[in-house]
Amino acid sequence: MQELVSDCFRKAFSNPLLDTLDDAALLPAVGRRLAMSTDGYTVTPLFFPGGSIGTLAVHGTVNDVSMLGAVPRYLSAAFILEEGLELETLYRVVNDMAQAARTAGVRIVTGDTKVVPKGFADKIFITTTGIGEILVEDPPSGHRAGPGDAVLLSGSVGDHGLTIMAQREGLSFATDVESDSAPLCGLCGRLLERVPVHVLRDPTRGGLASTLNEIASQSRVGIRIREDAVPVHESVRSGCSFMGLDPLYLANEGKCIVIVPGASAEEALAIMREDPFGREAAVIGSVTEEQPGRVVLETAIGGERLLSLLEGAELPRIC
Amino acid sequence: MQELVSDCFRKAFSNPLLDTLDDAALLPAVGRRLAMSTDGYTVTPLFFPGGSIGTLAVHGTVNDVSMLGAVPRYLSAAFILEEGLELETLYRVVNDMAQAARTAGVRIVTGDTKVVPKGFADKIFITTTGIGEILVEDPPSGHRAGPGDAVLLSGSVGDHGLTIMAQREGLSFATDVESDSAPLCGLCGRLLERVPVHVLRDPTRGGLASTLNEIASQSRVGIRIREDAVPVHESVRSGCSFMGLDPLYLANEGKCIVIVPGASAEEALAIMREDPFGREAAVIGSVTEEQPGRVVLETAIGGERLLSLLEGAELPRIC
Repeated sequence: MQELVSDCFRKAFSNPLLDTLDDAALLPAVGRRLAMSTDGYTVTPLFFPGGSIGTLAVHGTVNDVSMLGAVPRYLSAAFILEEGLELETLYRVVNDMAQAARTAGVRIVTGDTKVVPKGFADKIFITTTGIGEILVEDPPSGHRAGPGDAVLLSGSVGDHGLTIMAQREGLSFATDVESDSAPLCGLCGRLLERVPVHVLRDPTRGGLASTLNEIASQSRVGIRIREDAVPVHESVRSGCSFMGLDPLYLANEGKCIVIVPGASAEEALAIMREDPFGREAAVIGSVTEEQPGRVVLETAIGGERLLSLLEGAELPRIC
Repeated sequence: MQELVSDCFRKAFSNPLLDTLDDAALLPAVGRRLAMSTDGYTVTPLFFPGGSIGTLAVHGTVNDVSMLGAVPRYLSAAFILEEGLELETLYRVVNDMAQAARTAGVRIVTGDTKVVPKGFADKIFITTTGIGEILVEDPPSGHRAGPGDAVLLSGSVGDHGLTIMAQREGLSFATDVESDSAPLCGLCGRLLERVPVHVLRDPTRGGLASTLNEIASQSRVGIRIREDAVPVHESVRSGCSFMGLDPLYLANEGKCIVIVPGASAEEALAIMREDPFGREAAVIGSVTEEQPGRVVLETAIGGERLLSLLEGAELPRIC
């Protein structure tokens, strides 16, 4: 196990903070307030078009820290491995993590590995925890949406959720669908520097519809969304139609909802579109006083319907 | 799942930082350097005399942060639950964690829960990550042991390891053995305030012998230990003798090795013995120039032998 740790993890993640070999990392002082977030990753399959459990374990936590208005700085990574796991699989996952961390500008500074006997886990589970530095005096929060605010989305929805489902079902139509697994820290950092951001949230499990409902409920406001303004890739739309799914409820792993004062909407949109992970950003709706706690969808054919929270059992192990 | 989270976790762990319900916690600025540590807990059985996976998940990470010379402040907790887990079991574990966190003076500020289908995990796995505030200019490190230093131990060894083994084997002799699962942050904090501490390490997996070897290797010094100075409870000694085990290689979950200049040994010992988790503290040996990288045991009958690193497979899922 010691050889495994030095060979695999330390080579891939090497940095001066990790390399001291103690059981914890010693980090420089951070003058500002901190954001801390943790997530367990149990996705199956481990590898899929557009990413892997390794990219998700970095992007997911980096994004959760970013959503609090912070620049992610440090990650820890704890692995639970099933005995008999092929080393090649572990190396691929760890290299994906190292690459994703470099792109996101975070350092993996400490970690842990536990091995459980065969049959007591499913290949690899990863838990990452991120620490970030809060950038602004009034950080964005799910409580801060107000009437007159604009609701923006950084790109298309449904890509990750549909990709995982198609992989599990072995559906051949889905050859051109891929996960949107991506780090949002750059996009969010630039937004926070230049625009008063009220809410930042990444619509992961439960999708856009569920996350908008959480915001409406936390802020006690209504949210109106225009169906034809929400970007959905054609491949996702046709895959969803085939499988009877609604892309608004599918998980995303590289998208964020941004709520800003109406007057700042155009500036926010321009900043988002400059980012490699925000090229398809769009204004998708607005915050209202009416129907507090509810999300109303204006449909493409001119009608209206309530978008409720996802009901029933959600697909397990989507991330 | 949402009900589970609010009912179980938020009630048990409630504090103002956790209660904002966002995906990450917003923490006050910390003026000093930070320590960060993470550990996955997969112990079986979940409950045992002296503790549970819940107490370990708090104490283990609190102790890792403490060993870097930091006061642990915040913990995150990520749960991987096997579908079908009895809720009563989860409640017991979570309450153990909440109680352990209160005793250690840390707050659980953010968390995550994933459920995997039956057969893809073993009841409960927990990963905790801790952040602490570094107390001193020159924090203790495995690299800082020097010739002339004294080696102290905060109490008896082998209790946790033997307890878990006895539970698994269903051995009835072991009725008076219990895990030493305990938080060491108070003891370490007071030591650091008053004594120049060179090394702090908790001898968990691999036991006292393995941890001393790691220190000897990192600091390139020799370490001499007197066998009869190492506290071992009589019940552990007889249990080990029955099972053919050496208590020096068994895991501990509430003990630390403290290395200080020889001249500070008595003061350090007095401070340790004042602490509820250091009453049996002892000076067990010293650091030497001879045999760098090696640990020599002076046996009770007057001989000497090298204490090597633990060889062969270690017992899985001990913590």
